[in-house]
Amino acid sequence: MATINWDEIYETALDWTKEAREYILVKMKESFQISTKADQDDLVTDVDKGVENFFQEKLAAAFPDHRLMGEEGSAQAVKDLTGVVWILDPIDGTMNFVHQERFFAISLGIFQEGEGMIGIVYDVMGDELFTSRKGRGAFLNGAPLPRLIESPLNEAILSINAGWIINDRRLEELVRKARGIRTYGSAALEIAYVAAGRLDAYISHNLAPWDIAGGSVILKEVGGIMTNDKGSELTFLEKDTFLAAKPSIYQDVLSIINK
Amino acid sequence: MATINWDEIYETALDWTKEAREYILVKMKESFQISTKADQDDLVTDVDKGVENFFQEKLAAAFPDHRLMGEEGSAQAVKDLTGVVWILDPIDGTMNFVHQERFFAISLGIFQEGEGMIGIVYDVMGDELFTSRKGRGAFLNGAPLPRLIESPLNEAILSINAGWIINDRRLEELVRKARGIRTYGSAALEIAYVAAGRLDAYISHNLAPWDIAGGSVILKEVGGIMTNDKGSELTFLEKDTFLAAKPSIYQDVLSIINK
Repeated sequence: MATINWDEIYETALDWTKEAREYILVKMKESFQISTKADQDDLVTDVDKGVENFFQEKLAAAFPDHRLMGEEGSAQAVKDLTGVVWILDPIDGTMNFVHQERFFAISLGIFQEGEGMIGIVYDVMGDELFTSRKGRGAFLNGAPLPRLIESPLNEAILSINAGWIINDRRLEELVRKARGIRTYGSAALEIAYVAAGRLDAYISHNLAPWDIAGGSVILKEVGGIMTNDKGSELTFLEKDTFLAAKPSIYQDVLSIINK
Repeated sequence: MATINWDEIYETALDWTKEAREYILVKMKESFQISTKADQDDLVTDVDKGVENFFQEKLAAAFPDHRLMGEEGSAQAVKDLTGVVWILDPIDGTMNFVHQERFFAISLGIFQEGEGMIGIVYDVMGDELFTSRKGRGAFLNGAPLPRLIESPLNEAILSINAGWIINDRRLEELVRKARGIRTYGSAALEIAYVAAGRLDAYISHNLAPWDIAGGSVILKEVGGIMTNDKGSELTFLEKDTFLAAKPSIYQDVLSIINK
């Protein structure tokens, strides 16, 4: 196998992500069609599919031995993480995209033999670009994000979806002990917000690899901890619960939801 | 009593709000001191107080017969809404301000004999300026906001704080019936988001007049309905529950939380 040029891959991924953002902005000015999946909460749009096709075609031409795992169908082909796999959510936060026309992101994680090498989360409307490369730190619009600072749970702002709170009573204690709860409706942005210190933990059920892949590389670079809700390692191959937290509250959060 | 020049008041209020935003941005670059009230969730900062003092002094000089009701102490002097009263939250979303350095707003409502005449909500970091005058429509950064369109509850995105959801089981049915839940942690912004169609309803307990005054004038102009959680008119004099919704789901929401 030829040596992998990660500088080239990173710059290319960044360029394509920026191009994809421009495509989204143009499409938003036109009216866009909305198709619905079985679950009305999981809207898919033409734009979503357009971005994934864009990456699929670009990737096949530039890095034919890399594979794409994406929300809109490319996932079917990827059953393991051998080699280099691009894990893409073309529009993370589709409901926000359709309903709010903001608070959504392009999320891209590039993995090698199952390990996150590059993470990119781009808040399309907010124009906040979170980037990271393994071992090289994380950045917001080019400025380094500091390592996460210690603070206790009673000073923490957590992101937990209300729909899960009412279905899982374990989360109540967490809600009571934290300082505040916020919900933005985009896993990729919420993980990036933990990395930026805006949130102290993010908990969600039933997230797919493409919801978390990009953010996970970013958050890891500032010292964040990520597992499923049992404390087990994430596989990035199947849907799972997801817990991301700064180190100083990770154990507290994990203990409380496993009482 | 002399004729009230609402054009002048509106332009002046807008200028001061923009000046206050600049002041906040400058203060944020410096390190700021945080003082705590009894409730840790209700942080107050020097900046908060500085903005209120700024409005207090300006108002005394320019419109000496107008009164200011503000979060940081000016409220003590205002026990009724006779004459012209400026209802100000210098920084709505103080926890966001301190913890996230974003998602907070200057909120200003100017009332005459208890009726909202001017509403201004300024997202300081997002640079989104929501404005309105009674009978003249609502605007976001100068562009008119359309009247709220009809849509059912099962397509609605609601903002409800998780802390309230776990303490008030009436809200569970609402969470289940809605399409999604978002929580941003600034009442002023959340009301403005209902006006902008980003949210379809916003429900909160224990809001003060300054949390809702500015947003209420804006939301009314696009046809939004606001009451307390029993459907009673808001007084803008005391803390109360708060329900803001587009007309097509207001009755549904009210019925569900009063079952």
